[in-house]
Amino acid sequence: MKKLIIASTSTLHGGAYLEYLLPTLEVHFKDCKSLLFVPYARPGGISHDDYTKRVAETFATINISVKGLHEFDNPEQAVADAEAIFTGGGNTFLLVTQLYQNNVMTAIKKAVENGTPYLGSSAGSNITGLTMQTTNDMPIIYPPSFNTLGLVPFNLNPHYLDPIEGSTHMGETRETRINEFHKINPQPVLGLREGSWLEVHGDKITLKGDLQARLFRQGKEAEELETGTDLSDLK
Amino acid sequence: MKKLIIASTSTLHGGAYLEYLLPTLEVHFKDCKSLLFVPYARPGGISHDDYTKRVAETFATINISVKGLHEFDNPEQAVADAEAIFTGGGNTFLLVTQLYQNNVMTAIKKAVENGTPYLGSSAGSNITGLTMQTTNDMPIIYPPSFNTLGLVPFNLNPHYLDPIEGSTHMGETRETRINEFHKINPQPVLGLREGSWLEVHGDKITLKGDLQARLFRQGKEAEELETGTDLSDLK
Repeated sequence: MKKLIIASTSTLHGGAYLEYLLPTLEVHFKDCKSLLFVPYARPGGISHDDYTKRVAETFATINISVKGLHEFDNPEQAVADAEAIFTGGGNTFLLVTQLYQNNVMTAIKKAVENGTPYLGSSAGSNITGLTMQTTNDMPIIYPPSFNTLGLVPFNLNPHYLDPIEGSTHMGETRETRINEFHKINPQPVLGLREGSWLEVHGDKITLKGDLQARLFRQGKEAEELETGTDLSDLK
Repeated sequence: MKKLIIASTSTLHGGAYLEYLLPTLEVHFKDCKSLLFVPYARPGGISHDDYTKRVAETFATINISVKGLHEFDNPEQAVADAEAIFTGGGNTFLLVTQLYQNNVMTAIKKAVENGTPYLGSSAGSNITGLTMQTTNDMPIIYPPSFNTLGLVPFNLNPHYLDPIEGSTHMGETRETRINEFHKINPQPVLGLREGSWLEVHGDKITLKGDLQARLFRQGKEAEELETGTDLSDLK
């Protein structure tokens, strides 16, 4: 049975890394003693080793040991063997490029569909959707494809940001950008504000956290979803 | 002789379309009676016709007639024949995809190198750089390449935005994103704030407008450049 936590962000303002999610993760990973970390997105350009170390420190507090995917000679096999998988945030273009280059995009999809519990934050959440095309990131590298894991049948926009009241900046708002996406792409886009996450158990998808999420569908007005909303039929 | 205006934005807050640039454009296009408009970036998903009409209304005030590139059966020939070229803003991924699909990326580069005066705003400015990889836009479509016109030997970040003081949002700042770009790409990136533009005359590149621009170079501290700065040696 599929089992995913798809989080908007790893960190809330003023909080420690994954702090707000730890009680949820203790339950989510309760049968796991080890976790495979995918450090490819490299936030701020941090090294794979340093990123993995940061994550290992956090998971040590709930008694889970962490190894980075970059430490394995055969990444595909490492994914197949993993007890649990966590893909961290950073740059989605870099993440997707490296998932393809290391031949693990399909391997992760298969593992999670077969029941390996998965955690994604930010870029690691973005890739659980159909495509990475509603990322906020800069295209710092050219990926072989924009197609991603498709573990949920829609797209995600993590770190969803409401228009800033009184702003005089003329760049597009997040909503404008997603509307441009819908001029040429049909799938729904779920804007997850920082502090929200999706819980996927088999075919059941539920909005969690204290906040509303914003749902965009092609040709329809955007709508606010209350926490607890069942999204199992969204596609 | 190359002759370009590379503007951060078409529109300032509270101003009309291209209003702040019109005195500059009257001089820039003084020998032109007609202009070829590239509407491919479709801001907000506006149609090519509607976008071209908006631009034609503005240029009518300085006695220049406008035709959209989408109106021609042979876009490559239309570019070669143009008296002047303007590429408007919108989504850079869509713009670049269509420039390649319609076989005009090289044609525009050649025309501008041979002296056809060029105006770019936002996405239309982004493509004058080496690559489109420092765009702020959403990857709503997969372009055949991220390489662009290379009419200046660096990259541009239009609508450059300073970090918002007191923000609790945990998404990356523009500066963080550009620093991530520099972890894997060597070329300088010029952050052009709204109201700034570059003037290119042959090999001479000058920062114009009232504001400073922010220059990012791989492995160096970002620096502020005063208006009037000569950027001819930047690469």
